[in-house]
Amino acid sequence: MPVSNSAKRGEHVAKGARTRESILRVAVNLASVEGLEGLTIGRLADELRMSKSGLFAHFGSKEELQLATVDMAREIFVEHVIGPALSSPAGMPRLWALCENWLDHVESRVFEGGCFFTAASFEFDSRPGPVRASIVAAMRKWLSTLSRAVDEAIKAGHLQSSVHPQQFAFEIYSLAIGAHWGHQLLGDKQALSHVRSTILGRIRALATPACPSMKIKG
Amino acid sequence: MPVSNSAKRGEHVAKGARTRESILRVAVNLASVEGLEGLTIGRLADELRMSKSGLFAHFGSKEELQLATVDMAREIFVEHVIGPALSSPAGMPRLWALCENWLDHVESRVFEGGCFFTAASFEFDSRPGPVRASIVAAMRKWLSTLSRAVDEAIKAGHLQSSVHPQQFAFEIYSLAIGAHWGHQLLGDKQALSHVRSTILGRIRALATPACPSMKIKG
Repeated sequence: MPVSNSAKRGEHVAKGARTRESILRVAVNLASVEGLEGLTIGRLADELRMSKSGLFAHFGSKEELQLATVDMAREIFVEHVIGPALSSPAGMPRLWALCENWLDHVESRVFEGGCFFTAASFEFDSRPGPVRASIVAAMRKWLSTLSRAVDEAIKAGHLQSSVHPQQFAFEIYSLAIGAHWGHQLLGDKQALSHVRSTILGRIRALATPACPSMKIKG
Repeated sequence: MPVSNSAKRGEHVAKGARTRESILRVAVNLASVEGLEGLTIGRLADELRMSKSGLFAHFGSKEELQLATVDMAREIFVEHVIGPALSSPAGMPRLWALCENWLDHVESRVFEGGCFFTAASFEFDSRPGPVRASIVAAMRKWLSTLSRAVDEAIKAGHLQSSVHPQQFAFEIYSLAIGAHWGHQLLGDKQALSHVRSTILGRIRALATPACPSMKIKG
């Protein structure tokens, strides 16, 4: 039976999407090391040994490329950090899984240069425009995921009801950013393991007697 | 009495140093907003409306300019954050003054784009070379100033002796970096005031009964 035209077209579209995705995975890693502002069509073409015109067929401008890179980074982040935590029961187990997965994704270099979003946050915080807006949107989603997990831990009776979900989520994430800084800039090999203990200590101090016991993996 | 040649020379040298300092103050602010990697002789010449050759007379290369900018940022940081805290008595008052001065310097925009070193840290953490090394050195000095203040607070009997100076200093600074992130990226107007309470809460939880009472200024 001959392959129909529409099947061929479908295959072509799927191949285009796969190519685009492979390009973006390289772009995400490059940006995590060299910064998102340095991610130009020319720089990426060099890295991929592709022609600039080939890349322009996928992304019409540097800004479009940057925005698509942020979206891809968010997908990778969800896949490695948020998704797996959702298999832990709501309450303290899920909150702790989110914390550990975040630290693990820095340690195992899911992004070559450390956490893509932490780097992009500090790079773009004084650069207004659509790229900054997309980073802000991704970070708000992450903070609200973390706040929701704190809230669920309170509702499950695992955390004291006096805990303020947004503020505690913010405190946890601040400690994580600090650990990223120590690990990535100062080359402090213990920064991530120290912060695991610090966060666990903070969680335990605010836990109720009903909270299941949490411990560090590994 | 005619001005001697050596007096003229001295005046010339002093004028050169003042010009260099004014140039570097502009460079520091520009880098805090646009990043240190974007700080080229050409970009700075545009900003100052000076000729590139005029700037090359002061800084022979982009790297020399970046290194001098880091040094100047460190001087400004010492002047605004560390220096004034040394007038508070060693122990908890000095530790708390260091924390407040750090948060104040972000809030009052001593550097136009927020904390120069926080931005530079995340920008250069994956870029090996002399510029990264000078940022790392400045950050190690800051962490050791903070650790020493924690240690002095323990020796003064203000903090429990079980507190680990380096780890507690790291925790405090992580919270401060997180607040910088919330303030600068998310535009969270309360990020700095919330973190003042969080840090003060952490300090109070580890204080001894002999600790003088600390409160938030203003």
